[in-house]
Amino acid sequence: MSFHQYFYLFHSYNKFFIKTIFKTKYIFLNIIVLSFLMEKIQAHIIGEIISSNSAEAYSLYKKSNFGEKVEDKIQYSFSEILFLVENKKMDVFSGNKKIQKEALLKKLRRFDKKIQIKYPVFKDLRIKGYVIKTALKFGADFRVYPKGAKPGKKHAKWIVFVDHESKKLTWHEFSAKNRVAHSTKKNLLLAILDEEGDVTYYEVSWIKP
Amino acid sequence: MSFHQYFYLFHSYNKFFIKTIFKTKYIFLNIIVLSFLMEKIQAHIIGEIISSNSAEAYSLYKKSNFGEKVEDKIQYSFSEILFLVENKKMDVFSGNKKIQKEALLKKLRRFDKKIQIKYPVFKDLRIKGYVIKTALKFGADFRVYPKGAKPGKKHAKWIVFVDHESKKLTWHEFSAKNRVAHSTKKNLLLAILDEEGDVTYYEVSWIKP
Repeated sequence: MSFHQYFYLFHSYNKFFIKTIFKTKYIFLNIIVLSFLMEKIQAHIIGEIISSNSAEAYSLYKKSNFGEKVEDKIQYSFSEILFLVENKKMDVFSGNKKIQKEALLKKLRRFDKKIQIKYPVFKDLRIKGYVIKTALKFGADFRVYPKGAKPGKKHAKWIVFVDHESKKLTWHEFSAKNRVAHSTKKNLLLAILDEEGDVTYYEVSWIKP
Repeated sequence: MSFHQYFYLFHSYNKFFIKTIFKTKYIFLNIIVLSFLMEKIQAHIIGEIISSNSAEAYSLYKKSNFGEKVEDKIQYSFSEILFLVENKKMDVFSGNKKIQKEALLKKLRRFDKKIQIKYPVFKDLRIKGYVIKTALKFGADFRVYPKGAKPGKKHAKWIVFVDHESKKLTWHEFSAKNRVAHSTKKNLLLAILDEEGDVTYYEVSWIKP
């Protein structure tokens, strides 16, 4: 496919789909289709940091809020990495060597033990069109922005705590999660992953009846 | 005080307060004042059942939804008993012998191990003007009706699960509570009693983002 053919195809696709579908729940389909049309992002891992300065990385950052601009690069959360690699939108390189999906997951699991529980929630919400960012500052797992929102311009809709169905919690832990959400004026969303990989969501508010 | 004086005083009080204050948060004050004006309810315990057929019992049932009509008697929940006894509105008799408050609490604790945790929540919500009924049918601790509501005529605002801050819970238990509330189309209220006897409330909804 020549550059002009590619450009034409990509442009037509953009015109037809992006304006009508991009902000809807079909974002996942869109990403799949885009992945056939766009070049893959080449990302590089250095220590725990995975980033890219490719044109595709900037384009996806602008369109779909994947990654964060750090200096002249786009830097990704681990969940974003897994999502983009799974959807064939990204290859991750260590030096010149491409890291295979399984090896990548193993590596990320070393950095974040909870990634296996967090990623299915990220994926489920991202497919539904939400924009999901990390939430270390909030002592939570994710911030979730409304569908199509630009983080920084809109407030997060929820802060999310992820847990696996097999876990227990104390009321002290439960209270702490609520206090964090309340003090940052955000709603609390509990995302519980079951054994089959499905996620159940509970919205919790601290109230004074 | 003669019957006429008593009646006049009671009637004036009713006229002045009941219409304006009874349905507000001053219900507690109201009950205290009423307790000086009204005769105490004489209730009788037979097995686990505490009931009364006195005029005062019927009056309080009609005005403030204390107790439930069972055949020709007004039958009380354990929390109601403790509340009325504590506010000097009721004496409980076993045969001809009045049971003292401490002995009564001990007795009720034998019937319901959770009464010590449930009662402070009942008291806190009742003082705020809510009408509180048992919720065995719902597998919960209480049904809570809006302030001044007549149970049976209005739907419960919440079903309440009470727990002590020192307890743990599994996500399975958490999920079960939500399922009960959801399937009965009621809101779920978690009432957590702390070591100092204060209650913190969390409203929880099962949502599909």
